[in-house]
Amino acid sequence: MLNQTHNPDLISWVESANSGNTDFPIQNLPFAIFRCAGSKENFRAGVAIGDQVLDLAAARKSEAFSGLAQAAIAVCDAPELNGFMAMGKDAWSALRLALSNALASGSDEQAKLAGCLISQGDVEYSLPCRIGDYTDFYTSIHHATSVGKLFRPDNPLLPNYKWLPIGYHGRSSSIDVSGQTFKRPKGQLKAPDAVEPVFAACKRMDYEMEVGIFMGKGNQLGDAISIDDAEDHVFGMCLFNDWSARDLQAWEYQPLGPFLAKNFASTVSPWIVTTEALAPYRSSWTRDEADPQPLAYLESEHNRAAGAFDIQLEVQLETEKMRSEGQPASHLSLSSFRHSYWTVAQMIAHHTVNGCNLRPGDMFGSGTQSGPTPEEAGSMLELSNGGKQKIELDNGEIRTFLEDGDCVIMRGWCQKEGAARIGFGEVAATVLAAD
Amino acid sequence: MLNQTHNPDLISWVESANSGNTDFPIQNLPFAIFRCAGSKENFRAGVAIGDQVLDLAAARKSEAFSGLAQAAIAVCDAPELNGFMAMGKDAWSALRLALSNALASGSDEQAKLAGCLISQGDVEYSLPCRIGDYTDFYTSIHHATSVGKLFRPDNPLLPNYKWLPIGYHGRSSSIDVSGQTFKRPKGQLKAPDAVEPVFAACKRMDYEMEVGIFMGKGNQLGDAISIDDAEDHVFGMCLFNDWSARDLQAWEYQPLGPFLAKNFASTVSPWIVTTEALAPYRSSWTRDEADPQPLAYLESEHNRAAGAFDIQLEVQLETEKMRSEGQPASHLSLSSFRHSYWTVAQMIAHHTVNGCNLRPGDMFGSGTQSGPTPEEAGSMLELSNGGKQKIELDNGEIRTFLEDGDCVIMRGWCQKEGAARIGFGEVAATVLAAD
Repeated sequence: MLNQTHNPDLISWVESANSGNTDFPIQNLPFAIFRCAGSKENFRAGVAIGDQVLDLAAARKSEAFSGLAQAAIAVCDAPELNGFMAMGKDAWSALRLALSNALASGSDEQAKLAGCLISQGDVEYSLPCRIGDYTDFYTSIHHATSVGKLFRPDNPLLPNYKWLPIGYHGRSSSIDVSGQTFKRPKGQLKAPDAVEPVFAACKRMDYEMEVGIFMGKGNQLGDAISIDDAEDHVFGMCLFNDWSARDLQAWEYQPLGPFLAKNFASTVSPWIVTTEALAPYRSSWTRDEADPQPLAYLESEHNRAAGAFDIQLEVQLETEKMRSEGQPASHLSLSSFRHSYWTVAQMIAHHTVNGCNLRPGDMFGSGTQSGPTPEEAGSMLELSNGGKQKIELDNGEIRTFLEDGDCVIMRGWCQKEGAARIGFGEVAATVLAAD
Repeated sequence: MLNQTHNPDLISWVESANSGNTDFPIQNLPFAIFRCAGSKENFRAGVAIGDQVLDLAAARKSEAFSGLAQAAIAVCDAPELNGFMAMGKDAWSALRLALSNALASGSDEQAKLAGCLISQGDVEYSLPCRIGDYTDFYTSIHHATSVGKLFRPDNPLLPNYKWLPIGYHGRSSSIDVSGQTFKRPKGQLKAPDAVEPVFAACKRMDYEMEVGIFMGKGNQLGDAISIDDAEDHVFGMCLFNDWSARDLQAWEYQPLGPFLAKNFASTVSPWIVTTEALAPYRSSWTRDEADPQPLAYLESEHNRAAGAFDIQLEVQLETEKMRSEGQPASHLSLSSFRHSYWTVAQMIAHHTVNGCNLRPGDMFGSGTQSGPTPEEAGSMLELSNGGKQKIELDNGEIRTFLEDGDCVIMRGWCQKEGAARIGFGEVAATVLAAD
C-alpha cells in the first residue's frame, strides 16, 4: 500500500526538511497557494519542504519535471488549486512522486530547483482553492453528546446520530486562511429565562477544532459515489476552525440549523496535506457491537480496515496579555481524528447517495473533534461545561468563552513508530472587539 | 419614485412586447444567460423583450449605446452576470434606461438593434450567474405553521420565528436552470413507528414554490448592511423550486437542519426580473400589533411603506399522462410574495448583521410562499396535509406527493391597475425514476 514516497529513511537536500521535528519532511509535501509577503505578485501553488516553499510556477519552468508530473505542475501555476484537484489521483500521485524524487538527497534536479525555494517566513497565503460549497459534519459522538446535553438536556443524542453522518451546509464566502481576524459578531441573544431576545454582541464566543477535507475530482449530479470509490475523490486535509457564537446559536438554530452563529468567519490552515501523504496514519474503524451497524452504502471492508486517520489535533490559546508579556500560548486540548464516529469515506458516500454533486475544491468540515475524555474536548463550550466551569490558563488568566484579542491556535500532526512524522502547520486567528 | 421606464403607455418596436399578455413588455427587461439552442456558441447575457431575446454581446457591437450603459453592456458579454451584478445599481439603472429608450417605438436605434434579436423559441439557457453561496429562508408564516404542525404537532411555530427571519445555508452545486431533470433521490427513511431506518427511494417527493433573490453588489466581511441600504444590494428576482424529499427530511433534519432532503436538485427560472422593474409592485409591509415588533436593525420606515413585493406565484403540475394525452397542466395553487412575514430588506439586514459577507451572484430562496388560505399553499406537503388528503388533478389523476415523470411548472407575474403587467416566465422541471 505504501510507496517509496513514505520511506522514513528518505532525506532531502533541503536541510531543514530533515530535522525530525519539522511538519514538512520530504514524506509530507503539502500544497498551498502563496506569494511573497506584501508583494503584488500573482498567487500560485507551492509545496512545503522543511522551512521552505517550493514555488511550483518557478519549478514549472525549471525543466526538472516531465510527463504527467509536468502537466500537473502546469495546472498548479494558478491562483487556486481547483484545476489540479480536478485532475484526479493519478496526476496527484505522479506529481508527488516526481517531487519526492527531485527533492531527495542526491537528486539530479537539485541545481534546477534550488532557485525555486522561498523561505516560509517570507510568504503570505491565500485560500488554497475556490471553495464552491462547504459542508460541515458532526462526526464526533463525544462532541455531539456533550453539546446535546447543553442544548437539549433531556435528549442529548438524537436517534438519527448513529445511523447517518449528520451534516449541513455552511457558508463559503466567509472562510479565510490562517491569520484571519474578525470582529465579534452581533445578533439576537435570548437568555433562557428572558421573555424576549435582545440585540447585542455575542457573549459566548467559541472555536471548534475540526479537520477540513478538500474534494478533488467531483461527480456528476445524479451519480452517487460508492464508499469504495469515495477516497479517490479526496485531495487532502487541513486544520479548520469553525468559529461559533453559542448564544446566537441557541436562539436561532431551530428548526433549520445554525446560521448567523457560524457564518461570520471560519478559518483554514494554508497547507493541504494530501490523502496520499496521510497513508501511513490510516487506522482501522470500528463500531461498537451494541450500536447500529452501518447500512450497506456506508459499509465496506476497506473502511473497516483503514477508514480512519490518526491525526493529532491540539488547541492553544494566546491572549492579549500573553502576547504583550511574551508568555507562551496556553494548551487547551489534544485529541485525534481517529475517534470520529464516521469516516471521511462514509461522509462522501452519504453526501452523494441522493445524487448530490461535489466539485473540485469543495470542503467538508469534520465537525468538532472531541475525544472520549473531557480534556480532549475540541471546543470551549465543552471545556467550560457550557460556561459553568472556569478554564485556568497557564499564566493564571481565566476563561469560560473567548475574549477580545484572544488568538486560537490549532496544530495537527501524525507520528508513529516506523513512519516519518508529518504535520499540518497551524491555523491561528484572532477575535477582535465588536464595532 | 417610478421613472419613465415604468410608463405603462410605452410600447416597443418589437411588436410581440406590446401584446398585453406577454411576460416581457418593455417595462420589464429581465436578464438571462443564453445561447442558440443546441449550438456550441458561448453563453452570454440577453434581455427579454416580447418573444425575443436581445443579444447583449451583439448589442455591444451595435454602437447603439454609450457611457455607463455601454460599459455595463460590455460586462454583460460574459457567460455569467456576476460582473454586471457587481457594478451596482447606477450601472443597472443606466443600462435599463438605455435599453428602454433603444427598444421603445420610434427609437433611432431600431435599425442597429433589429439584427441583435433572437426568438426565445430558438435559445437555451444556463444559470444566470455563478451562485457562490445560496441561503434559503423560511419567510412564510403560513408555511412555517403548516409544516411545523406536521413535523412537530405540539410545537408548530418555534418562539424565534416572529423575532428573526429564519434561514439556513443550502447547496449551490445542484442548482440548475428550468428544464432540469433529476432522478428521485435515495436515502434513509424511517417511518414514525419503525424502529430502524431503511435505505430506499424517496416516497414523499415534493416541490416548494419560492422566490429566488439575487445579490448584486456585495459587502466586505465584517460590515453589516443596514436595512435602509439593503435593497441597493439586490439585483433582482426569479422563480425558484426548492425540491424537497420529505421523508429524508423528517429523519435527518435534527439537530442541524435539512441536508440530503434538499441538496439533490433545485431549479431557477432563467430570467432575473430586476428590482427596478418590480418597483410598481412594491407594497406596504405590516406586522400584527399582537406580534412582536421588529428589533431596530430589522425596522425602517421605507420597509414599512414599501418593503413587500406583490408577485403572484402559481404552481401547475403536468403528469406523464397529461403529456402523452395532450391535456393541459393542472393548477395546484396561487399565492403572492406579499404575504411574506419578512421582507427582502429584512433578510439582507439579518444575514449580514453579524458581519457575514454577501457576494455578487449569491442567491436567497425566500422559503416556500404559502398564503393564508389552504389553497394558497406552496408545497404538496401542505396541499395534501402531510399526505393524508388526496389532491385531485384536472384530468382525474390523484396525487399526495409527486410521481415519476411529474413536471412541476411555476409561473410568476405582477399585475395591477395603472401599471404594465410584467412576468417572470416559468420554471419547469421533472422528477425521473430513481436508478
